[in-house]
Amino acid sequence: MTLPLRDELKGLKPYGAPQLDVPIKLNTNENPFSPPADLISAIAADISQIAGELNRYPDRDAIELRTQLAQYLNEESQVSLDANQVWAANGSNEIMLQLLQAYGGPNRKALTFTPTYSMYEEYARDTNTEFIAIDRLKDFSVNEDLVTTSLKEHSPSVVFFASPNNPTGTAMDLSIIQNVAPNFPSTIFVVDEAYAEFRRPGVASALTLLPALPNLVVTRTMSKAFAFAGVRLGYLAASEALINDLMLVRLPYHLSSVTQSVAKTALRFAAELQADLDVIRRERDDLLVWLGENGFTAAESDANFVLFGTFTDRHAAWQALVDHGILIREVGPTGWLRVTIGTPTEMQSFKTALLRVKAEMS
Amino acid sequence: MTLPLRDELKGLKPYGAPQLDVPIKLNTNENPFSPPADLISAIAADISQIAGELNRYPDRDAIELRTQLAQYLNEESQVSLDANQVWAANGSNEIMLQLLQAYGGPNRKALTFTPTYSMYEEYARDTNTEFIAIDRLKDFSVNEDLVTTSLKEHSPSVVFFASPNNPTGTAMDLSIIQNVAPNFPSTIFVVDEAYAEFRRPGVASALTLLPALPNLVVTRTMSKAFAFAGVRLGYLAASEALINDLMLVRLPYHLSSVTQSVAKTALRFAAELQADLDVIRRERDDLLVWLGENGFTAAESDANFVLFGTFTDRHAAWQALVDHGILIREVGPTGWLRVTIGTPTEMQSFKTALLRVKAEMS
Repeated sequence: MTLPLRDELKGLKPYGAPQLDVPIKLNTNENPFSPPADLISAIAADISQIAGELNRYPDRDAIELRTQLAQYLNEESQVSLDANQVWAANGSNEIMLQLLQAYGGPNRKALTFTPTYSMYEEYARDTNTEFIAIDRLKDFSVNEDLVTTSLKEHSPSVVFFASPNNPTGTAMDLSIIQNVAPNFPSTIFVVDEAYAEFRRPGVASALTLLPALPNLVVTRTMSKAFAFAGVRLGYLAASEALINDLMLVRLPYHLSSVTQSVAKTALRFAAELQADLDVIRRERDDLLVWLGENGFTAAESDANFVLFGTFTDRHAAWQALVDHGILIREVGPTGWLRVTIGTPTEMQSFKTALLRVKAEMS
Repeated sequence: MTLPLRDELKGLKPYGAPQLDVPIKLNTNENPFSPPADLISAIAADISQIAGELNRYPDRDAIELRTQLAQYLNEESQVSLDANQVWAANGSNEIMLQLLQAYGGPNRKALTFTPTYSMYEEYARDTNTEFIAIDRLKDFSVNEDLVTTSLKEHSPSVVFFASPNNPTGTAMDLSIIQNVAPNFPSTIFVVDEAYAEFRRPGVASALTLLPALPNLVVTRTMSKAFAFAGVRLGYLAASEALINDLMLVRLPYHLSSVTQSVAKTALRFAAELQADLDVIRRERDDLLVWLGENGFTAAESDANFVLFGTFTDRHAAWQALVDHGILIREVGPTGWLRVTIGTPTEMQSFKTALLRVKAEMS
């Protein structure tokens, strides 16, 4: 018997970073710092408070959580959003799926500039949206001309920009969005800021462009800056009209009471968690300098990871690092590898191992 | 500026039971019993145990949880499933969406027999699957002839049977699935057993048919029997091949570490929670008798709700109950209303109010 799997799915493998049991994992852009003890206690206490009501459905619209996420963004990026301009879901994954369910779908296109986050293609496939990938410029950037030309040629209903971009780490020049988005009012411009909190001082968030651009969506996640990959809380900021559209495709009660509770608890600790971000940023900046000093090329990074190289045989380099107990990610353009910023101790181990690998391979 | 919302979504309203602030809510088929105190303590303790790892992504395949769900089903329905035959997601909603992403979609059809759960049509719309609704027989049942004829005429790739059916409460004759499913090997038969644990003694679960039917899916939820609507844990049992297909469309890390933890904790309390189910079943059976004795018609129910009537003006009856402080659901065939089984005290209030409404309206 053959199950009626859709043709476009036949022969595919499920998405997921390869996992290996090695001592140091710098492969999935997780925040290396565990939630602090007082946050853990607060999570348990807050869950106890709501658990007596778990027989009831969650707040379908997650109003309190969205209010608090708006407050967080307002402080973090000096903007002035309210709850109606913020939407939350189970990870950025579900956010992106909802965006394509509303604005993509059959006979529509989603476009992005590669190398970039490989899930965009999966979101398109999952929603039967045609997927268009345009090469970035040599330095992994895009410019107004490239974006305008691509949008004119393909007329996508949704365009994805990751900024900072994954796996390159590079942030985009926001003036591109500012100048191009008004010319394509029937295209949704999604700026995926999963790694925004790691940006260097002076780099602005696309959130600042929202008041002028009703076709702009800025997505964020608690996975990275809040060290909360296990909680699966993604969110976005956009116009209220756009969020009303998403409510037509969101599954009712998509966000559990537990998820809403845990996320709200962590938001109270935003300032405390900021200290860990400082460490990660410092380690990243140090690594960029160190890579240059040691004969590697690295892309500029505003994220918690660095794309570096270049290797004649990057798979061999990746495997050699695994043999030294360090798992990074074989992803991005040929010859490059991506390393997530870990703790200072982990980064020291990574540097030591990388120098050994370099010596072994030369 | 007009956002590029898909045409089929224009003018729609988001799904959701109307919520009103009344003392007694018997409108969304929630379990009226709060989780017991020892379960609440265990949830908090278990979350504390895993919270230190929340900076890491969840177990992508939720192996432990699926193993424990299989064990639960094996005891509950005397079957012998293993983890590879069980799949879990954020509520039955996400389970159904994944089924249609894999097996429905453009140029395919999903079929069901109405009146039934209204979300099936939304799942179809959300996945661009054509939706076909066939009328049930007068007693809200289906038979082999109706199912065979409908499937031959429409050739759906997915057919949904809710059993017990919502909003009618009626369980289906499993011999229909047993006899018809082998004749349509390219159709996925989904038996939605969201309310299965409320079935009367002697009524079998469709789980018992799984070994013979590779195109059968049985879905369950922790929302009702585990009094866990706020946790959003839906799951299914099916062949391992089918679950491998679903893994191609599931969003990676779709099930948070917190959800996995809380669900596993509750599974340890399955036996303790069973006592509440006994109360609900008894109240339901009592209500069915009482409705008959008091001049109402009621559909047979194997669920935690009862469809009853009939009213010349059901909206007026619904409103009159609201005026007496009781919110039920105006849903199902014309003239009928659906009431969720609440606590014994709530059911007493409901009966008193219903008699008053009957007197007022006559």
